[in-house]
Amino acid sequence: MQSVHTVSAYDEELKFLSKRIAAMGGHAERMVEQAVAALVNVDHGLAQKVIQDDIVLDEGQREIDDKAIIIIARRQPMATDLREIVGAIRISADIERVGDLGKNVAKRVASVDGRQPNSLFRGIEALADLALTQLKEVLDVYASRSVERIGFVRDRDDQIDAMYTSLFRELLTYMMEDPRNITPCTHLLFCAKNIERIGDHATNIAETIYYIVTGDQMPADRPKGDKTDKVVLPGTVPAK
Amino acid sequence: MQSVHTVSAYDEELKFLSKRIAAMGGHAERMVEQAVAALVNVDHGLAQKVIQDDIVLDEGQREIDDKAIIIIARRQPMATDLREIVGAIRISADIERVGDLGKNVAKRVASVDGRQPNSLFRGIEALADLALTQLKEVLDVYASRSVERIGFVRDRDDQIDAMYTSLFRELLTYMMEDPRNITPCTHLLFCAKNIERIGDHATNIAETIYYIVTGDQMPADRPKGDKTDKVVLPGTVPAK
Repeated sequence: MQSVHTVSAYDEELKFLSKRIAAMGGHAERMVEQAVAALVNVDHGLAQKVIQDDIVLDEGQREIDDKAIIIIARRQPMATDLREIVGAIRISADIERVGDLGKNVAKRVASVDGRQPNSLFRGIEALADLALTQLKEVLDVYASRSVERIGFVRDRDDQIDAMYTSLFRELLTYMMEDPRNITPCTHLLFCAKNIERIGDHATNIAETIYYIVTGDQMPADRPKGDKTDKVVLPGTVPAK
Repeated sequence: MQSVHTVSAYDEELKFLSKRIAAMGGHAERMVEQAVAALVNVDHGLAQKVIQDDIVLDEGQREIDDKAIIIIARRQPMATDLREIVGAIRISADIERVGDLGKNVAKRVASVDGRQPNSLFRGIEALADLALTQLKEVLDVYASRSVERIGFVRDRDDQIDAMYTSLFRELLTYMMEDPRNITPCTHLLFCAKNIERIGDHATNIAETIYYIVTGDQMPADRPKGDKTDKVVLPGTVPAK
């Protein structure tokens, strides 16, 4: 009986980590959704709420870290269970960072006046939709451990990059048209960059899930996000 | 004899992690130094070298992760040793990310023409000096585990933030003066942001060291880096 009881308590501990991560993931998704809504509608109240909500993820990460260490010390897990626990530490760090990125978007609401062209805000919304879909699907894979579905992550990441690059160009164009656009569009540029980074964290999480399930690392040189480092608009060609 | 041998092999394994992290840290510092030198001198060859060098940190992080898991599984460490090992996983992730940031600066060399005012490049160099000093000192604390010296981290972080904010304003000013500055200055803005983030990672590492040595977390709500989210230059005041 003792042994059964012990194993079951152990299972409960592992399940706790998974559940806590699912909850953190849901919270991070909501933060990003609300941050983008606050940006698009210049809603300072909602932005403030997102900024305050970030503490929940900081606490979540700390709780998972503490719990993971306790489980390792007490249960001395092997192989799969150990990967499960170390994986939880990594994934919660990625989710916490997604929350930070959402908070950073929310903080920039104060510096954007909403007078920029509608297409820009639609572009940011579309980028956020894509990044959040990526995050949600990756968290679904985490819940189901159905790692054979993980191929979608790379394709989606390419889409996110393409959309971010086009948004980057559009923002530069508006900045060149009118100097009054420079400050708000710079903040929108950082917002877009933050959202693009959410896709990178979703990809990190996918890699961790792959590692948890298979014990192998996904191949190393996945293409990393931002392709805008080479974007130079006409009239500003760099000297050789 | 067997037991002594075992303990000593175990110590060697732990030392391996520390040494590997020290090597990764040195490599990341060099990458950032060279990336900034490549940017300031518009040196495309050096930039290319930095971009290629990043793989070393990816491999380093993977090696530490794999080794850490093996040590935990084999030695079933308790308390301090376990924190040491989990800490190594965290620190190597932060160092790998510093390398990514250096690589990103190097990639932007292609889009900056070096025609921007000298003061901007001096500003970026000064910011990088400060961030790299922060990183070096934090890695020294890691080597010595003299956690009582860790107080400097917060003050330095404030300095980095202040310098980044002033650089951010200066870059916006140049962009407003001449639309031809917009593209290169946007890339410089992202370079500055990347360098500022290095300071954040150094702070993360400091927190991990504190945790390794004391078993406690440093207080949660340390002020996070970027204060530029509220920067709005005259003539671009957002509508209420």
